[in-house]
Amino acid sequence: MKRLSGILILFFLNINCFAQFTEYVNPFIGTTNFGTTNPGAIVPRGMVSVTPFNVSGSDINTWDKDARWWSTPYSWDNTFLTGFSHVNLSGVGCPDLGVILLMPTTGEVKADHKEYGSIQKNQKATPGYYATDLEKYGIKAELSATKRTGISRYTFPKGKSNILLNLGLGLTNESGAKIRIVNNQEIEGSRMTGSFCYNDGSERLVYFVARFSKEADEFGVWKKMPEMKAEAAWSDTDGQFKYYKNYTQELFGDEVGAYFTFDTKNNEQVIVEVGVSYVSIENARMNLDAESNQFNFEKTRLQANQEWNSNLSRVKVEGGTDDQKTIFYTALYHTQIHPNIINDVNGQYPAMESFEIRETNNCNRYTVFSLWDTYRNYHPLMALLYPQEQQDMLRSMVDMYKESGWLPKWELNSKETHVMEGDPAIPVIVDSYLRGLTDFDVEAAYAAMIKSATSAGKNNKLRPDIDHYLTAGYVPLVEEFDNSVSHALEYYIADWNLAQFAKALGKKDDYKRFLKQSLRYKEYFDTEFEMLRPRLKNGEFLANFNPKQGENFEPSPGFHEGTAWQYTFCVPHDVIGLTNLMGGKKKFVNKLQMVFDEGLFDMANEPDIHYPFLFNYVKGEEWRAQKEVRRLIDTYYKNAPDGIPGNDDCGTLSAWVIYSMMGIYPVCPGNTDYAITTPVFDKVTIELDAEFYEGKSFQIVKHQDSKGKYISKMMRNGKEYKSYFINHQDISKGGTLDFFFNN
Amino acid sequence: MKRLSGILILFFLNINCFAQFTEYVNPFIGTTNFGTTNPGAIVPRGMVSVTPFNVSGSDINTWDKDARWWSTPYSWDNTFLTGFSHVNLSGVGCPDLGVILLMPTTGEVKADHKEYGSIQKNQKATPGYYATDLEKYGIKAELSATKRTGISRYTFPKGKSNILLNLGLGLTNESGAKIRIVNNQEIEGSRMTGSFCYNDGSERLVYFVARFSKEADEFGVWKKMPEMKAEAAWSDTDGQFKYYKNYTQELFGDEVGAYFTFDTKNNEQVIVEVGVSYVSIENARMNLDAESNQFNFEKTRLQANQEWNSNLSRVKVEGGTDDQKTIFYTALYHTQIHPNIINDVNGQYPAMESFEIRETNNCNRYTVFSLWDTYRNYHPLMALLYPQEQQDMLRSMVDMYKESGWLPKWELNSKETHVMEGDPAIPVIVDSYLRGLTDFDVEAAYAAMIKSATSAGKNNKLRPDIDHYLTAGYVPLVEEFDNSVSHALEYYIADWNLAQFAKALGKKDDYKRFLKQSLRYKEYFDTEFEMLRPRLKNGEFLANFNPKQGENFEPSPGFHEGTAWQYTFCVPHDVIGLTNLMGGKKKFVNKLQMVFDEGLFDMANEPDIHYPFLFNYVKGEEWRAQKEVRRLIDTYYKNAPDGIPGNDDCGTLSAWVIYSMMGIYPVCPGNTDYAITTPVFDKVTIELDAEFYEGKSFQIVKHQDSKGKYISKMMRNGKEYKSYFINHQDISKGGTLDFFFNN
Repeated sequence: MKRLSGILILFFLNINCFAQFTEYVNPFIGTTNFGTTNPGAIVPRGMVSVTPFNVSGSDINTWDKDARWWSTPYSWDNTFLTGFSHVNLSGVGCPDLGVILLMPTTGEVKADHKEYGSIQKNQKATPGYYATDLEKYGIKAELSATKRTGISRYTFPKGKSNILLNLGLGLTNESGAKIRIVNNQEIEGSRMTGSFCYNDGSERLVYFVARFSKEADEFGVWKKMPEMKAEAAWSDTDGQFKYYKNYTQELFGDEVGAYFTFDTKNNEQVIVEVGVSYVSIENARMNLDAESNQFNFEKTRLQANQEWNSNLSRVKVEGGTDDQKTIFYTALYHTQIHPNIINDVNGQYPAMESFEIRETNNCNRYTVFSLWDTYRNYHPLMALLYPQEQQDMLRSMVDMYKESGWLPKWELNSKETHVMEGDPAIPVIVDSYLRGLTDFDVEAAYAAMIKSATSAGKNNKLRPDIDHYLTAGYVPLVEEFDNSVSHALEYYIADWNLAQFAKALGKKDDYKRFLKQSLRYKEYFDTEFEMLRPRLKNGEFLANFNPKQGENFEPSPGFHEGTAWQYTFCVPHDVIGLTNLMGGKKKFVNKLQMVFDEGLFDMANEPDIHYPFLFNYVKGEEWRAQKEVRRLIDTYYKNAPDGIPGNDDCGTLSAWVIYSMMGIYPVCPGNTDYAITTPVFDKVTIELDAEFYEGKSFQIVKHQDSKGKYISKMMRNGKEYKSYFINHQDISKGGTLDFFFNN
Repeated sequence: MKRLSGILILFFLNINCFAQFTEYVNPFIGTTNFGTTNPGAIVPRGMVSVTPFNVSGSDINTWDKDARWWSTPYSWDNTFLTGFSHVNLSGVGCPDLGVILLMPTTGEVKADHKEYGSIQKNQKATPGYYATDLEKYGIKAELSATKRTGISRYTFPKGKSNILLNLGLGLTNESGAKIRIVNNQEIEGSRMTGSFCYNDGSERLVYFVARFSKEADEFGVWKKMPEMKAEAAWSDTDGQFKYYKNYTQELFGDEVGAYFTFDTKNNEQVIVEVGVSYVSIENARMNLDAESNQFNFEKTRLQANQEWNSNLSRVKVEGGTDDQKTIFYTALYHTQIHPNIINDVNGQYPAMESFEIRETNNCNRYTVFSLWDTYRNYHPLMALLYPQEQQDMLRSMVDMYKESGWLPKWELNSKETHVMEGDPAIPVIVDSYLRGLTDFDVEAAYAAMIKSATSAGKNNKLRPDIDHYLTAGYVPLVEEFDNSVSHALEYYIADWNLAQFAKALGKKDDYKRFLKQSLRYKEYFDTEFEMLRPRLKNGEFLANFNPKQGENFEPSPGFHEGTAWQYTFCVPHDVIGLTNLMGGKKKFVNKLQMVFDEGLFDMANEPDIHYPFLFNYVKGEEWRAQKEVRRLIDTYYKNAPDGIPGNDDCGTLSAWVIYSMMGIYPVCPGNTDYAITTPVFDKVTIELDAEFYEGKSFQIVKHQDSKGKYISKMMRNGKEYKSYFINHQDISKGGTLDFFFNN
């Protein structure tokens, strides 16, 4: 854990040299069921976030988590608050976590969140801090966090004040918890999580210890009792919450909780610190002991802010409007939520796909890998700005393979959730390796990739439909909505990356084999539609093909969460080849432009988010990229709760806007070239990590004296730069890229 | 724990000298919701009984635990079996325990007891052994037990065989459990119990470790999932049992369980041993390690039988029919179920009314004290036949006072359930003390009694309505059905006992005070009805008095579970005084006889069970006692499932028939005289415990050459015996009481 301390020292030294980047973060951006980010208090990549939970229990709310597909513990549109959850996902498309709820109330203790909930007012959120007033009780609640603990400060009115710890309510559809009151200042327990995307198999316990700044005057636990039949006549608690005053044994059940009651003076503050672990209650207590500031809320809040400020200082932007800066830094903030650490302060973490406990080896263990999304742009961005963290993520992924036999796909708390498709760890690892992040077990990573790329049979956990792909070069449509083309397109990208990896490692035969395989996307190219089209096992194309089928998340034969239009250009590793298939550059450009002009493009989902940058592949057409990218930024990204076009997908849509606003974009992972478009800001300074990169910083400078919107000229370190691509290696050497514009 | 070993040695030495007493035990006697005994496998005063649970889940059953007030895990009338529960109450009037169910099945694993249940056939039960066939599966299940463990042997057909461990279903109305699969041969967990008589406050965890003789080929846990709303569309487990294969973390919930699956050969036996503790899982494992015979079922069964044989050998009866002997020894067997030990093999137990762990000091800690029932005859019988156990019970009760501040009333697993009324620990302790069981903390016991007898205010846990009783001498009726007279009658008996205790301890003032208080039952005597009648606070008697109100468990003003007729003679400590109040012996006898003749007597509940013996207080009328007692035995006690007239109440109705069949009965606890009636058997030999009593044995001999039913003459050690009472001290000296009869 030495490095962690190093980082802390670093940011303490740096803090005064930088502007307050945190002032340009608006944690409310994306806080709808579209963006699915939440404004909870968290530090960069923290295991814990303390998040207002306001999506259940009242018709006052606009939305209810149980009434539709709902993926976030918080909605900006809602006002009925039922607590503050301590482990949360942010920017994902499925419900899970959102558990360990603290809630302050006054008067009689009520365990039912429908009864104890309060309208919330006067919300405020900055990185590492959230505050709200609870109208019903006249309580002010303030939240902050460290990596593995949450801290809550409640300012109570005079009288009988309660703090509830509710283990029943949660965003997860898993249930079951234990709770135990240790003494009148401490509660410990454990809560089941899992069921991400309503899938089974990702169940895991989260453990906690909650410590209170003040001794409770009264305490107890509660449990919702099952409904009785005839016996209800004799029971006071039939189907009701039952309260167990002074109960100090473990209490188990579907809906259990605890209450601490205090006789408070007016404006008296009670502070609760909650330590969390995925290993054990003992580790949760250890995390709490190690990271707690002994109920010093202000100190924790300041620490969190400083940590964020240091973290966000990797990129400095100048010029642009405050809204643009806020969009930019909030997006950067959103890339620093997940993946998050799962290791405790002693390095222990639960091994992938098991309940075994392992220990990290001088690095952090990361979790929450939404790889189908993040492989496209997020991990290249992390490699550029946060190479140390990205390298630890590579190590985490390779360790997952060592622990479970497979690389991750959509990993959540050391469990594979089997969400979305493909073999996305391959491009993540290969791309980073080619960018120079090589300090991980390369041989094991290669073996892992070969395994999933070549293992026939349904037991191939990452590519269960690989057989026909291996023999015939494509995945056939065998069920009406089996996403077969989407699967294969992912495999092609992965195999192309594997080919690059093989090449870099001197494995020439493998290089040839996987390169060849990666180009068999052409099997799907249908000359009738001049598009990718699902094919059947017998080689025929799917009849009654409608390229627009699949809009608005309706199912589409062969395509997952999208239309054939949104997938046809999803061959970033062979844009030239695709151009040729389509009949040349002119037809390619026209078809691509049509996608934008006719509203066939979807900014809210990942398969097509690289589309606008594809214009750069056709000389003379780069202005189209500049135009479409700027239009998309301006249309879809706002300094507002609905300011992210779709699920942020663990920072993927945020990474898109960060890159786009800087004027560079990694079109294809495994290809370390960036496509160049117009930067939004006058000046962008990327601070390069000296441990990984040669240069100190890389600057993008927009020359405002030429006020046009299209790039007319670029200068690289004082020399004219002709290409509309720039390689990662060039950037990593530092220096300047100057932009000039015509009209 | 030295003494325990001593007892074990004792019975091994003795076992061959005695007849097989266990052959005269029919564990099916009383196995209805009237007797509420169960036929589960248990050893004397065992913490564990392994009991068929067949009161839930199917309309095939005659009775369902959820359809009425239901107090037993087993009903003779039912056939749909859903498992074998490991902690159970026997012979009580309220539901609780009946949890930790094992169930063997075959084929697909099903967690819902409604689905996995089977019709049972070919039941067999002997002390320490129970067997049944499961028709649905072709499985034979056999059960046995040690003090703290249960052992089950399942004989499976060929194929996929399962053993389920269900922590959801239970007789208790408490819920919530945790379960964890330790490895493929062991499961551990914990289950909430409590809610006895639907009262809150008696909640406590029971811990277990289950160990299997064979490694499971597959295993997993399950949980019943909550019902969803809109989300049900995406979930496979909405409101269903969800199975977690290979899951080895703790699982919590309202309805959880585990399954172990084995590939069995035809007639393959799998054995499960379950260790139980009320302290911890670790202690449950320790109990299992200490008492297990390493899956040797036959050895455990033989041990249990030998232990029972030794235990029942305290009384030897000769003559009488086999049914009479079976009624007698089964009753004796039923007195050896509760109170049962709660201490683990290391002496640890949970302290009264807390979750603190304490350790016994060279004695057993007992639990399940149904004292309102058992003080009347059960504890005198235990003092006579099992003085060591009875003395440990006194110590347990006094320790409960030391731990919680109060003596127990209806104690269950170190929690006061507040069932029934009065201060019944006083007569239990005083009676035993006067019988010579004095090796307990007498001073603490006296202090405890003084506390409850004199503490004014509602905080008097045992006598919450004591105030008016202290000042005016009676408890006034203040609510329609407040049982006030019943309460006061219990207080009088307790205070009379306390007076005797004070006298024995030389506390003359206390003696006078409590003796005087004990006689204030006369406040209730109404000269209009010549009965006890509820009185109001203003001193007036209750208007509209109906002495028959309260039959069939309907509520009655002033009287609990009975009519004024069933309470009016409930002044056993002052029968002479009551006789005088009623106008003399003739009127007393006539009135008492009328109770029997007009069907006003209730053999099924405790307040009047001493009535028939009251005839002995009137010289020349003893024949009436002999007649009524014999009639009651013959009418209400049978060698059949409905062979106990009411709830056995932890051995109280059994103690009644044991005494009655021996020809002696302790009319009033604290008065060590036995009333004498006709013995059923030709010869009764009571083996006296040499550590407590002077004599070796006491014999009751019926001389059959005089064939009449009424006693004509008695001889005590060869000399004519004129009294119809005989004192405990006389019996304890040993010798013979010979009976002769006229017609």
